[in-house]
Amino acid sequence: MTLTRREALSTIAAVGGDNAAREALAALGLGPSSHRRPQPLQLKPDAGQGASVLVLGAGIAGLVSALELRRAGFRVKLLEARERVGGRTWTLRNGDRVDYRDGRSQTVQFDQGLYFNAGPARIPSQHRTLLDYCAELGVPLEVLVNSSHGAQVRPDLAQPAFTVGQAINDARGHLAGLLATAVKRDALDDVLSAEERTRLLAFLQVYGDLSQELAYEGSLRSGHGESQAHPGALPGSLSPVSLERLLHPELWGALLHSEFPEFSATMFQPVGGMDRITDAFYQRLREQVQLGAEVRRIRQLDNGVAVTWHDHQSGLEQVERADYLVATIPLPLLARLDTDFSEPVKAALREAPNGKATKVAWQSPRFWETDYRIYGGLSWVEHPARLLWYPSNDLNTREGLVVAGYVTGDDAQAFGEQPFDAQFRASSEAVELLHPGYSTQLRHPLAVSWEQIPFSEGPWLERDRFAAQASALLEEPHGRVYFAGDGLVQSGVGIWQESAANSARHAVARLAERVIEQRQKAQAGVLNEHINPGA
Amino acid sequence: MTLTRREALSTIAAVGGDNAAREALAALGLGPSSHRRPQPLQLKPDAGQGASVLVLGAGIAGLVSALELRRAGFRVKLLEARERVGGRTWTLRNGDRVDYRDGRSQTVQFDQGLYFNAGPARIPSQHRTLLDYCAELGVPLEVLVNSSHGAQVRPDLAQPAFTVGQAINDARGHLAGLLATAVKRDALDDVLSAEERTRLLAFLQVYGDLSQELAYEGSLRSGHGESQAHPGALPGSLSPVSLERLLHPELWGALLHSEFPEFSATMFQPVGGMDRITDAFYQRLREQVQLGAEVRRIRQLDNGVAVTWHDHQSGLEQVERADYLVATIPLPLLARLDTDFSEPVKAALREAPNGKATKVAWQSPRFWETDYRIYGGLSWVEHPARLLWYPSNDLNTREGLVVAGYVTGDDAQAFGEQPFDAQFRASSEAVELLHPGYSTQLRHPLAVSWEQIPFSEGPWLERDRFAAQASALLEEPHGRVYFAGDGLVQSGVGIWQESAANSARHAVARLAERVIEQRQKAQAGVLNEHINPGA
Repeated sequence: MTLTRREALSTIAAVGGDNAAREALAALGLGPSSHRRPQPLQLKPDAGQGASVLVLGAGIAGLVSALELRRAGFRVKLLEARERVGGRTWTLRNGDRVDYRDGRSQTVQFDQGLYFNAGPARIPSQHRTLLDYCAELGVPLEVLVNSSHGAQVRPDLAQPAFTVGQAINDARGHLAGLLATAVKRDALDDVLSAEERTRLLAFLQVYGDLSQELAYEGSLRSGHGESQAHPGALPGSLSPVSLERLLHPELWGALLHSEFPEFSATMFQPVGGMDRITDAFYQRLREQVQLGAEVRRIRQLDNGVAVTWHDHQSGLEQVERADYLVATIPLPLLARLDTDFSEPVKAALREAPNGKATKVAWQSPRFWETDYRIYGGLSWVEHPARLLWYPSNDLNTREGLVVAGYVTGDDAQAFGEQPFDAQFRASSEAVELLHPGYSTQLRHPLAVSWEQIPFSEGPWLERDRFAAQASALLEEPHGRVYFAGDGLVQSGVGIWQESAANSARHAVARLAERVIEQRQKAQAGVLNEHINPGA
Repeated sequence: MTLTRREALSTIAAVGGDNAAREALAALGLGPSSHRRPQPLQLKPDAGQGASVLVLGAGIAGLVSALELRRAGFRVKLLEARERVGGRTWTLRNGDRVDYRDGRSQTVQFDQGLYFNAGPARIPSQHRTLLDYCAELGVPLEVLVNSSHGAQVRPDLAQPAFTVGQAINDARGHLAGLLATAVKRDALDDVLSAEERTRLLAFLQVYGDLSQELAYEGSLRSGHGESQAHPGALPGSLSPVSLERLLHPELWGALLHSEFPEFSATMFQPVGGMDRITDAFYQRLREQVQLGAEVRRIRQLDNGVAVTWHDHQSGLEQVERADYLVATIPLPLLARLDTDFSEPVKAALREAPNGKATKVAWQSPRFWETDYRIYGGLSWVEHPARLLWYPSNDLNTREGLVVAGYVTGDDAQAFGEQPFDAQFRASSEAVELLHPGYSTQLRHPLAVSWEQIPFSEGPWLERDRFAAQASALLEEPHGRVYFAGDGLVQSGVGIWQESAANSARHAVARLAERVIEQRQKAQAGVLNEHINPGA
C-alpha cells in the first residue's frame, strides 16, 4: 500500500490529534524505543492445557493466532474459505487465476520465474513482529528499494518529466535560498540570536547547495548533464526546476513518502514473493488448517462456540465446536454472516468500511534499468494511474514486472469498475508519459481490484471512516469470541501485515490470560472445598 | 569511499566553478542524460591487427584496458606486481594477510563466509560503465543500503544519540517553520507573488509537517515512542531535536550524503565481495596476466617500448617489449620508477598527491539489526573514528562485519600511524558512543590504512591538490605511452572504479584510433607509390 495524497493530507490534518496523543503518551512515561529486542509473546507452553480454539481465516492474523495458540498448548483448528492460505498476502505467478466477484476472470500470463505481489509488498524495518516471524520461520529477505533518486516525476503534463532526485534537491535548494534571504533581511531576528543567524546561514549554504551569495542556482545533487567528450570531463548541473513547479501537490508523494517511518529505508521483501511468509506458516500448521472451508454460521453455546461451514470439496455443511473462537475474517464480511453476536457488535461490524484499490502489473524488458538506470522505487505522474512501481527483485536481469499504476482512495472505485482494456490502456498511457516510446514493450497485463476479490472484498479497512467507538468495541472479547486483524489496529505506523500479526498476538495473549485465570479460580475453588468442606 | 566533511565543504566551495562548468556545457549543447543505453566502446575487432600492448597494473583500469584491447585485436600482456589482481578492489577474508610497508602485519580472523571490502565498496546506479561490465561478466549484484533512517547520529557527545530519520525530518520541520514565519511576516513579498505565498505556505505545512499555525512541534516522520499497552495504540512523535543541535557541521554527512548522485539510492555491491568483479575480469584474461611482476624500468624505443620487471617467483629481471604501453600504476609510484619520460611528465607524476584513509572493521553479532533495527547505512559521531558503516550483505543473519570507523582527509595520517591497539580502542569507543554497552561484542578487529599498502600507497589521488595542468598533461599520450586510472579523471560524479574504467576506455579508444590512422596513412602511401611511381 502506498502513500496516497489523501493519506498525506490526512497526516497533516491529524497533527492536532497527533500532538495530543504524544502529550498523553509522554504523561504516561512512554518514551522513545529502548533499543532492545522486542519481547516475544511469552505464553507458558501449558497455558492452553488442551482448551480448543477455532480460528477463522488463514491470512496473517489467523496464521499467527494458530501458531501462537498451538505453541501455548491449545488445540487449534483453522478454517479458511479459499484453497490457499495467505488472504491478501497473495503472490501471483504464471497460470494463477484471478476470479472477480462480478464474474470477470484473468489467468496470469507472466513468464515462469516472474511474480507479482498483488497485496502487501513491503516490510519496513519497524515491523519487528513480522521480521521476527520471518527469522523464526526461515524466510529469506532481500532489500526492497522504496525510493530511487533516478525515478521520474511528472506533476504537470505540460512539461517533461524530471527525476525524484531533482525534485528533492531543487525543492531543498529553493527553500534554503528563500530562508537565507529572509534571515539576511533580519525578518527572523526576534526568534534567532545573532549567533544562530550566522550558523543558520552557513548551514543553509551547505544544506541547499547555495552560491556564495546564498542563492540557489542548481546543484549537482539534482543530477547532471553528460559530457560527450572525455568521460572524465566534469559534468554540469541541470538547470533547476522552478519553485512554482515544485509546489505542485502531485509531488508531495515523491518528496516525502520515504520519510514516513513505514516507508523509510531500510525496507524488505521476501525473496521469491510475499507469500513465502504465509507458506512458511502453513508448513508449520498443515495439521491445523482446513482449506476450502467457508464459514456460514457462528453460534455461542453455554460452554463454547459452534461454527457451521460449507466444505467446498464435499459440498456438505459441517459443524465444528470449540471452547473459543478467534475470528480474523474481514469485518465487513463477518457482518454479513449468520451470527448471534449482540446488536452493538453487529452494528460495529456493519460500520467497518472496506477500502478499494487496484494494482495493474505488466511484464516488460527492464528498460527502466537499462535505459534510465532506475532500480526499484516509484515514479509519479499526474494521471489516473498515479504512479509506477519498479521491481526490487532480480535487478539487472532481462525481464521484470512493473506496476503501473496503483490506484487507491477516492478514485479507486471508478478505476476498478472500468473494463480491463480501459484499465490497461490507462496504465500504458502512464508508462508512456514517464517513459516515452517504451509502452510498446509492455505485455501480459494483469489487474487486481481488491474490492472484486472474493473473501477479501477490499485491500484494507478505511480507518479514517471507521468510528473509534465501533473499533474499540471489537477489540474486546464478546463471550467466547475474539476478533483480530489489521483493521482493528489504530496506528499510523504499525500497519499492513504487522498490525495483523500484532492484533492476533494481542487477542491470543488475552485469551491465554483468561484460561489461566479460570483454571486458577477453579483450583482455588477445589482447594477451598478441601479446606472448608460443606461450606 | 565516504563523503568527508572536507568533501562536502569543497563541493560548496566549488559552486562557482561548477556553475561555470555548467554554463560551458550548456553552450556546447550538452543537456541532461538522454535516457538511452550508454554507447559501448565500439572498436572494430580488427582495430589492433596484432599490434602489441603492454599494460601495467591489474586494478580496474588495467583489467579494462587489457579486455578492451584484446577485444579490438591487439596482442596484450598485463604485468601485475602483486600475487592477485584487483589493486584497491580488495576483499579480505579469513586467513588473508595484510602486510604494511612499515613491517606491521595482520592476519584476517573473521569467521568463514564473512568478508570486508577494504577498498571500494559501493556502486551507484550512475556508474553505467562498471554496471555494464558486471552484466557482461555475469557478476551478481545486490542492493547496497547507503542510508538508513534508523542509523544513529551523535554530533555532540554532551547529549545522547538520535536517529538519522529524526535529524532529517526535524531539520526539515524547523526550517519549514522558520520560512513559513518569514512568509507570513511579508519578508519575501518582493520575490513571491500573493498566489505563490499561499501555495508556498500550504506546501510548507506538508513539507515540514507543521501545525495548523505553521509551527514545527515534532513529527511522526522523525520517529515515535512505543506503547507498552495495546500494540495497536497510536504511537506519539518524539520531542523534536532543537534547531541549534541540528546546525552542527558533524550532521552534514547524515543529512546530505545520500543526496549526492554518487551516494544516492539505488546503489549496489557484488554478492560475495567487490573482488568478484576483478576476479571475473581475471577469468577472461588468465593468458594475458602475469602476476608477481614488479615493474622496475620503462624505456621508449624507436619502434616501441621496453619494460624491465622483477619476477617475484624466479627472482630474475625480465624485459618485455611491445608496440605500446598503457600504464595504470598509481601516479606517485610511477613517479619513482626508472623511466625516460620527459621532464614535464616526470614533474607532473611527482605532483600527483596520494590521499590517506583507514578503515577499521570488526566481526560482531548483528546487534545493530536485532536491537536497533538498523540494516545497512551509516551512523555518525563526533569522534576521530567519525562513522559506523553497517553491512548490506546477508541481512538478518547472525554475525556481520561493521566498519568503525572510516577516517579520511586531514586526520587520516595521524589515525593510521597509531599502533593497532590504539586504533582498535578508538574504534570500539565510537561504537560505544553510538551503541552503549555493545562494544563488548566486537571481535577480530582489522585495520587497513591504504597509505601502508604496498603497490597502492594510498586510497586515491587527492584531486583538489592535484594541479589541473599536470593532470591534463598526463591525459595525453607521451610517445607510445598512455596513462590511465581513476586519478586522471576530473569528475565529482564518475569516481571510484567507474572513473578507472572510463579512463582506461578513453586511453584504449585513442590508442586504437592512432593505430587505425597510421595503417590508413601507410596504405595511402603504398597506394600513392602505385599511382605515381618514382614521384
